Amino acid sequence: MATIRDVSKEAGVSRATVTRVLQTPEKVTEKTKKKVQTAIDKLDYRPNMLSQTFRNKRSNTIVVMVPNIANPLFAKIISGIEAVAQEHGYNLLLGDTHNSRELEAHYIGLVETQLAAGVLQLSSHSTHPSILPKPNVKAVSIAGTASTEGIHFPTVRIDGALAAKTAVDYLISQGHQRIATITGPMGNSNTEQRLEGYKSSLNSANIAFDNELIFEGDFRLASGRSAADKILALGKQRPTALFCMNDEMAIGVIDGLSASGVSVPGDMSVTGFDDIEFASFMNPRLTTIAQPAKQLGQRGATLLIRMIEEQSPPELDIVLPFNFIIRNSVAKRELK
Amino acid sequence: MATIRDVSKEAGVSRATVTRVLQTPEKVTEKTKKKVQTAIDKLDYRPNMLSQTFRNKRSNTIVVMVPNIANPLFAKIISGIEAVAQEHGYNLLLGDTHNSRELEAHYIGLVETQLAAGVLQLSSHSTHPSILPKPNVKAVSIAGTASTEGIHFPTVRIDGALAAKTAVDYLISQGHQRIATITGPMGNSNTEQRLEGYKSSLNSANIAFDNELIFEGDFRLASGRSAADKILALGKQRPTALFCMNDEMAIGVIDGLSASGVSVPGDMSVTGFDDIEFASFMNPRLTTIAQPAKQLGQRGATLLIRMIEEQSPPELDIVLPFNFIIRNSVAKRELK
Repeated sequence: MATIRDVSKEAGVSRATVTRVLQTPEKVTEKTKKKVQTAIDKLDYRPNMLSQTFRNKRSNTIVVMVPNIANPLFAKIISGIEAVAQEHGYNLLLGDTHNSRELEAHYIGLVETQLAAGVLQLSSHSTHPSILPKPNVKAVSIAGTASTEGIHFPTVRIDGALAAKTAVDYLISQGHQRIATITGPMGNSNTEQRLEGYKSSLNSANIAFDNELIFEGDFRLASGRSAADKILALGKQRPTALFCMNDEMAIGVIDGLSASGVSVPGDMSVTGFDDIEFASFMNPRLTTIAQPAKQLGQRGATLLIRMIEEQSPPELDIVLPFNFIIRNSVAKRELK
Repeated sequence: MATIRDVSKEAGVSRATVTRVLQTPEKVTEKTKKKVQTAIDKLDYRPNMLSQTFRNKRSNTIVVMVPNIANPLFAKIISGIEAVAQEHGYNLLLGDTHNSRELEAHYIGLVETQLAAGVLQLSSHSTHPSILPKPNVKAVSIAGTASTEGIHFPTVRIDGALAAKTAVDYLISQGHQRIATITGPMGNSNTEQRLEGYKSSLNSANIAFDNELIFEGDFRLASGRSAADKILALGKQRPTALFCMNDEMAIGVIDGLSASGVSVPGDMSVTGFDDIEFASFMNPRLTTIAQPAKQLGQRGATLLIRMIEEQSPPELDIVLPFNFIIRNSVAKRELK
C-alpha cells in the first residue's frame, strides 16, 4: 500500500505539505494541491483513517444493539437507521445481543471507550431491564416502551398498549369472547405493555380475564408452534381467537394448528403484531398491527445524531402512529 | 468520565505508573497494581480504546457486507460469523450494500484505511461482479460462487449447480416434465450457477430446454408473487412444477398462485432454495435445498481471522455439503 512518503516523493513536495493538503487544504496553493492530488490518485494512496479518527477524537460509528437479527422487524428498522446514518456519514456497528447482559455491556463499552459515538437499542425484547441509560453514553431506544419516570433515556416507539387493545377490540367486534394471547417473555416491557392493552380491551367489553388463556412465548416462530399444542389441550375450553404479540409467533401457531387439522380462520382466528413482510405472504394472509418500522429507525437515528453532533438535549419520548391491517386470518363468529 | 489523571490522584501514584499497570502489568509490583486497580474500579475509569487501537496498529473489526439484510438466510449466516468473531475478540461492522458498488467501495475502504481488519462478503446476490478481490484487502466470500480462475478470492460455499440439479431431478422423479424456474437477477453468479444445474437436470432426462419457462426474479418475496401472474398467463402451456432459486420467491409465488385459486402442490408443485426458518412454517411447508448457513458463516469467519492473524495463505475454495429437505410443496404427477 502506498505511504505518505511515496506520495511526497511522487509529488516532489515535503511530507508536511502532503499532510497539509489532506488536513488543511485551505492553507495550500491550488497548484500544490493539484500536484499532491495527482500523486494520491496515481498511487491510490489511502490515509490511515484510524489515526485521523484518533486525532478528531470522535468516532463516526453508531452501535445498533439488536436482540435477535433473525427477526425481520429489525431488518426493517435497520433499513431506516441506515438511510439516515449514510446521509450523515456514520457507519453502523451491528451487535446481536441475544438478550445477554454481557454482550450488551460489551457493545456499550465501545462507546464508553470512544470507539463508537452512540448506541441505538432496538426493542426491549429481552427478559431483563436494559443496562441503559448510562451516564456519558448517548443512547436512544427504538421500538421498546416508554422510559421509566425520572430516567432520561430517549425513546422512539408506538403505543404498545393501545395497539394491543386495537387488535383485541377488533376480535371482540367480530363476535369473539374467548380470546387467548401468546405473549413475549414475561418481564419484558413490550410484553407487559401489550398485556395491559389486552386486559383493558377485555375489561371494556365486560369479558372476565382468564389466566388459563395466557400462553408465554419468546417472540420466535417455534414458540408459536408449541403454544398450539397447549391451546388445543384445553379441549372444549379452547379459545376461538388468538392475539399474538408478534407475527412470528402468529405464523408459528397457525402452522401448529393446521398440523392438527384446525384451520385458521375457519376454526380459530389469529392476529399478529409488527407486520413483517412475510405476514402478507402467509396462507391465510395475516391480520396484524403494523409498526412503522422504517420510520422508527429513521427518527431514532436522527435523534441520536443530533444528540452526538449538536449536544442537544434529547427528546424523551417520541410516539409514532401504528396501523391495524385487516387481511384474512380473522373470521366473524356468529353469536349463539 | 474519569481520566487517567483522576486515577493517578486517587491511587497516589504517577500517571506513568497507571499506564504501566494498563499496558505492561508484569513490570509493576502486586501492591501497586492493586492500588491502581482499586482506583480504576472506584472511578469506573475506561481507557480510551481508540488510542489503544491506534497504538496497536490493527483494528479488531470485521466488515460483513450483506446485499439485503431483510433476507433471513443472511441472519443465519451472520449468527455463525458472530459466534466465531466473539470467541476471537472481533467486532462485526455490518454493511447493507443494497447491491450498490458505491456502498461496497465505502465498506472496503474501511479496510484500506485500516479501520477494519478484513471483509466477509455474503453471497453474490448482486447484479454486477464484486469489486473484490483487491490487493491488501483480506476478504472471504460466503455463500457465493467459486472464484474465477486465476483470481485469489477465497470462497466458502455450496455447489450451487449440483444443488439446483438435485431439486430439479426430484421434480422429474415425481413425474414432472414441464418445469419452470424463477431465477435471481440475470448476471448474478449464483443465478448463473443454479441455471446451469437446472439445464443439466433437464438434459439428463431428455427434456428440451424452453426459454419460455425462465422467469427472472430478484430474490425477494414480491418478485415471486409477480412471477405467478406471468406463469398463469401461459394458459395451457403452463408448467406443472416450479424450481425457485430461493425460498422467498417460492413463498411469493405460492401466495400469488393461491390468490388466483391455483393450489400448491395440488395444481402446481414448488421447490425453494436456502431453507430459511420460515420455509418450514408455510402452508404448505416448503420442499427446499438447505444451505448449511450457520456453518458457512463459521468457516468463513475462521478462515478470515486466520488470514488476518497468522498471515496464512488463504484456502481458495471450501465447498460444504447441502441437504435436500422434502416437505409438502411437491405432489407426484401421474404420467398420462
